Amino acid sequence: MTAPVQAAVKTAVERTELQEFERPGFGADAGLLRVEACGVGGSDPESYRRGTRIPAIMGHEVVGAVEEIGPAAAARWGVQPGDRIAVEEYLPCWHCRWCLQGDFRLCVECDFFTVHATDPLRYGTSTCTIPPHLWGGYAQMLYLAPNAVVHKVPAGMSAELATLAIPFGNGFQWAVYDGGTQAGSTVLVIGPGQQGLGCVFAAKIAGATTVIVAGHTRDRARLDVALRIGADVAVDSETEDLRERVMHATGGAGVDVVVDTTGDRTGTVAADALAVAAKGAYLNLNGLEQQVPLGEIKRKYLTVRAPRGHSYRSIETALRSLAASPLPVAEICSHTYGLGDVHAAIHATAGIDIPDAIHVTVDPWKD
Amino acid sequence: MTAPVQAAVKTAVERTELQEFERPGFGADAGLLRVEACGVGGSDPESYRRGTRIPAIMGHEVVGAVEEIGPAAAARWGVQPGDRIAVEEYLPCWHCRWCLQGDFRLCVECDFFTVHATDPLRYGTSTCTIPPHLWGGYAQMLYLAPNAVVHKVPAGMSAELATLAIPFGNGFQWAVYDGGTQAGSTVLVIGPGQQGLGCVFAAKIAGATTVIVAGHTRDRARLDVALRIGADVAVDSETEDLRERVMHATGGAGVDVVVDTTGDRTGTVAADALAVAAKGAYLNLNGLEQQVPLGEIKRKYLTVRAPRGHSYRSIETALRSLAASPLPVAEICSHTYGLGDVHAAIHATAGIDIPDAIHVTVDPWKD
Amino acid sequence: MTAPVQAAVKTAVERTELQEFERPGFGADAGLLRVEACGVGGSDPESYRRGTRIPAIMGHEVVGAVEEIGPAAAARWGVQPGDRIAVEEYLPCWHCRWCLQGDFRLCVECDFFTVHATDPLRYGTSTCTIPPHLWGGYAQMLYLAPNAVVHKVPAGMSAELATLAIPFGNGFQWAVYDGGTQAGSTVLVIGPGQQGLGCVFAAKIAGATTVIVAGHTRDRARLDVALRIGADVAVDSETEDLRERVMHATGGAGVDVVVDTTGDRTGTVAADALAVAAKGAYLNLNGLEQQVPLGEIKRKYLTVRAPRGHSYRSIETALRSLAASPLPVAEICSHTYGLGDVHAAIHATAGIDIPDAIHVTVDPWKD
Amino acid sequence: MTAPVQAAVKTAVERTELQEFERPGFGADAGLLRVEACGVGGSDPESYRRGTRIPAIMGHEVVGAVEEIGPAAAARWGVQPGDRIAVEEYLPCWHCRWCLQGDFRLCVECDFFTVHATDPLRYGTSTCTIPPHLWGGYAQMLYLAPNAVVHKVPAGMSAELATLAIPFGNGFQWAVYDGGTQAGSTVLVIGPGQQGLGCVFAAKIAGATTVIVAGHTRDRARLDVALRIGADVAVDSETEDLRERVMHATGGAGVDVVVDTTGDRTGTVAADALAVAAKGAYLNLNGLEQQVPLGEIKRKYLTVRAPRGHSYRSIETALRSLAASPLPVAEICSHTYGLGDVHAAIHATAGIDIPDAIHVTVDPWKD
Repeated sequence: MTAPVQAAVKTAVERTELQEFERPGFGADAGLLRVEACGVGGSDPESYRRGTRIPAIMGHEVVGAVEEIGPAAAARWGVQPGDRIAVEEYLPCWHCRWCLQGDFRLCVECDFFTVHATDPLRYGTSTCTIPPHLWGGYAQMLYLAPNAVVHKVPAGMSAELATLAIPFGNGFQWAVYDGGTQAGSTVLVIGPGQQGLGCVFAAKIAGATTVIVAGHTRDRARLDVALRIGADVAVDSETEDLRERVMHATGGAGVDVVVDTTGDRTGTVAADALAVAAKGAYLNLNGLEQQVPLGEIKRKYLTVRAPRGHSYRSIETALRSLAASPLPVAEICSHTYGLGDVHAAIHATAGIDIPDAIHVTVDPWKD
Repeated sequence: MTAPVQAAVKTAVERTELQEFERPGFGADAGLLRVEACGVGGSDPESYRRGTRIPAIMGHEVVGAVEEIGPAAAARWGVQPGDRIAVEEYLPCWHCRWCLQGDFRLCVECDFFTVHATDPLRYGTSTCTIPPHLWGGYAQMLYLAPNAVVHKVPAGMSAELATLAIPFGNGFQWAVYDGGTQAGSTVLVIGPGQQGLGCVFAAKIAGATTVIVAGHTRDRARLDVALRIGADVAVDSETEDLRERVMHATGGAGVDVVVDTTGDRTGTVAADALAVAAKGAYLNLNGLEQQVPLGEIKRKYLTVRAPRGHSYRSIETALRSLAASPLPVAEICSHTYGLGDVHAAIHATAGIDIPDAIHVTVDPWKD
Repeated sequence: MTAPVQAAVKTAVERTELQEFERPGFGADAGLLRVEACGVGGSDPESYRRGTRIPAIMGHEVVGAVEEIGPAAAARWGVQPGDRIAVEEYLPCWHCRWCLQGDFRLCVECDFFTVHATDPLRYGTSTCTIPPHLWGGYAQMLYLAPNAVVHKVPAGMSAELATLAIPFGNGFQWAVYDGGTQAGSTVLVIGPGQQGLGCVFAAKIAGATTVIVAGHTRDRARLDVALRIGADVAVDSETEDLRERVMHATGGAGVDVVVDTTGDRTGTVAADALAVAAKGAYLNLNGLEQQVPLGEIKRKYLTVRAPRGHSYRSIETALRSLAASPLPVAEICSHTYGLGDVHAAIHATAGIDIPDAIHVTVDPWKD
Repeated sequence: MTAPVQAAVKTAVERTELQEFERPGFGADAGLLRVEACGVGGSDPESYRRGTRIPAIMGHEVVGAVEEIGPAAAARWGVQPGDRIAVEEYLPCWHCRWCLQGDFRLCVECDFFTVHATDPLRYGTSTCTIPPHLWGGYAQMLYLAPNAVVHKVPAGMSAELATLAIPFGNGFQWAVYDGGTQAGSTVLVIGPGQQGLGCVFAAKIAGATTVIVAGHTRDRARLDVALRIGADVAVDSETEDLRERVMHATGGAGVDVVVDTTGDRTGTVAADALAVAAKGAYLNLNGLEQQVPLGEIKRKYLTVRAPRGHSYRSIETALRSLAASPLPVAEICSHTYGLGDVHAAIHATAGIDIPDAIHVTVDPWKD
């Protein structure tokens, strides 16, 4: 019972080592999760290349079974040992005005963009020098902090599929709650990564009649999966004219909603989005360096926002919708690695060596 | 070109005769529709038994091709002769505060419940003594009045399917826009008639994860179709315990949305709705004689409304969603009759002689 | 520093005694409030007559200065000793789906109507046998529990005025957020008690052009204050015809919003509300025994809800709006009592002996 | 009865002549308005300098009494000769998807930005060569076209004040309905012209606790009026540091809503708006040439839109709120000119010769 906990620790830029941690004790309001699977996030390759927050156990799309739990935490979360849960990456303060109004993704303590929160405590991000050390999903166990946000995994759902809770929760947040997709909408999703696939799925679930997804030539496998989980049209924007395809697919009307998941720095994406937007459209644009011309916002009576994480409701909806869907969502989980191969798993997500990776997971108990 | 127009005229209670009308002339802002199909509405059997508004050409779910059109009307509606359209039953005033804000279903001149509008001009309702006489869909031609509301039929859609524009538009209005169904919702639809089937379809399209439909034993065929177009669970409330089935299907949580399409007079429906509603649920209840206990509204923090027709957007969404859906929606259109059999068509909708009728249409050009 | 804490303890039905409590210690995530004023709630007279939850320190509209605070609580709430705060009565679990979405008033652990929460821990309600005992505002000190919800008092606001945070927060919640009042609305508030005055003020602040308040003959002083803080018309419904007055004041149109704060058991209030509601109106009705006729809901396309406490945002808005308003809101605080006179203070709120009491507060440090 | 109609006709750039028009006949669905006052719009000076749409009767903020009316129009609008109405400038098609959903300001035929509507028929804009010629408010009579949108003037309101229906309707649309101002909001309005004053008033009516207005040194008179009709703080952005003033007035939090009414071309306004926006703020920005940095939208979770005219509801709310307000709104109407002085009236609005003009009106019957 007191066997040490194996974890994959990022010890330097692009470098991971297996390390052992002592199984931590914890208070009445906390617990310990036996990690079943941890998804490799779309931002993991970039974080892995960064020289900050080292050493760290990465991994923030965590699913597992409750291993041990304090009585207060059991009561609060309504869980018992053995119950399977998905854990959000946020560790909110629960006392700022955002937390008190249900918008904990904007919490002043765990929002990366808040001035005094440049180094917030978050699962998958914080260094493992902070006790009790187990702050990341690429490990056999995860510390369940008192302020964690947990969701029950629907009965019968595989751990791999449940790791989509966060990227697909982002999909609901960005395409539906922030982007305004509803029954009858036409939607363009730019970028077919995990978040983009989440947006495609969410848009279709919310009733969009035409969902278009755009990617690069190297995204072929992802575009193909997109077509099976909700996209009506997939565009290779390197070989095809994106604007022409969108206008054709919408009968010349343009789309009601655009969600950009690429973080494009060239301005191409924003320009395309503005060009194919219908009058009155919502644009949920990414790319911190882009400029949006106000003239177009006015001429077309657009609403412009930018994606910023997920809400409690978006994760719940993602899990429920994945569980209920007749679409072949399991195909998204294309590759699984063991703890010793986290380096390869992160590279696969970036398309390195494994060109057809879609969603990659780490199973810390795999041999 | 000046052949007379054949029409089925209700000349007395439960009595219909074929009559001929002169093909009418019309102004620059009006037109003439060649009716391809007219759905028999769920309220038609009751209207047919009523002794008011006689003589009348009934039929208010009208789909056809533009036969002739004045230049002003062609410009306003953006249609040419030959274009296929679905026509709403409303003939709004376009100048009251409801019309000016897009809520023309509540128009003071065409809302049945408005004091000074007890006998509004509406398609399928008004007597044919009012020139130019062709105010109903059970005829070869329909007069397109200047204040009519028309929708283009999606390319390739059959006229029979397009007659679902109104009942399925009601479905979107009642279950989604008024009732609040969204991705992840659990929904109970009471009554599997056309409107109920519309609510089932709309709820599923809008992302409901669990849709339950309830009906009587005689509704077997309709309940079966409901299961094919969006319902997850169908309950025969005469032989099964509705409350138990709902609580079981929702894991004990109850439903987020209830839509009643029955106009029940016994109070059973409202009582069931309140019993199975989750905390914070929306109830869209029918039945003019029912009483809703405020204590339950408060205890469960419910919102209670009642269904009242459809909006422009709901009809557009219904048509687009029917066109885009992979579900076997064509199965809903179970029976088609010719003009000489309107009496039988209305009876079939009431289940008389034809126990398995689901949605019945009249084709005025059928031999 | 370790002087005992004086408190007024309800020891039996309609009976209060002064008692001393030891000043409690507390953890890093909790604190102690020096109570400056506690408002007597509109429900206090009824609670005072009830034989449950005895012994208890009543008082749930608590305002004070932070006396001592643990470091974790200071960080979470952003407060230091000496800071003045208003404390909500709720002690939410912070982990149920309501808490996680910002709707902690519906928390499964602190909502009176939740089956397993018939005796939730709440300020002003719980018995003082539960350590650390200081759960009510009629005392010199209040225990600041880790799950408490606190709001900073605007600079310069008197403690008496700040005790309106809760009843006026209810006003914003019931008339504006739940009831839909907006710029240009016409509003009827039934009952001129604290909550009713809160609704009047909130409706006017939110831009209502006509605010009508109705009360009994004995409510004269409250109706007069209502006219000074936002009401345009005050109706004595015992001597005047309420329906006639409302229709006259709205030019025959009826009101867009009705909020009932009375808990009426006769059905009169619901009947009046339905009679004077405009088409499309929102009704926020009270009275657990009333029945609402669905026919009227349908005919007028009404939305019916019932008031259920306040949100974080409603309290913040109430405090900010009270601080910014040029209206003579200080007049609402009509009477202040010392700790030894809590019995009289509760009676005054019920109109016993003091017919012109409006809002009564207890100052636990008053001689 | 058949006296000719006097009108001020723009015959060339910056040139106006008095001309006489024959009093037109009209159909059953139209009418004739006796103009009592016409406001000089904020865009009139610019239009007056433009060489297009000549000759034209300018003036689009029209208020008057119904002079003659066809029976169909009388029924639709619910008006009789002598009734006083304010007329919107739009002449919508009533059949496009925007019109059918209540958003006629975006009508494909009367929206300046729609490709095929570069020269739409609108009051105050169209040339008077189009019969029946009387398309502008700087005349004794205005033709009431069948598709006009009219609002009843509240009893007792002066014609001058009622000409604020449009700029103050814009205020409600831009600051409240599009911008999201609500009770407790903090708001910055940039530009104290008519529309800016409308935004200030609307924001205060909707419950904003802090309203800041910014202008140039030459706007002193307008800033002073702003302080009397709703602004809490007025900033001369030429002599004061706007950002510092806003942060100070909001306790360092920044504002929840920014509305720009200036059409600034330098980028200063957008930069200021982004700098002082609170997290989660709404920005309603103008200035067709400006660029908005997406990085700031994302970092602060902003929503960016641009102002685009008014809705039916915004005009109704403006008229009702002006009628009900105790604020000295009549002070806004600073100057009135006769028909012979339209040239001077337009110049006054631009600040030429009359530096302290606020809102200028033309009374076509003034000697």
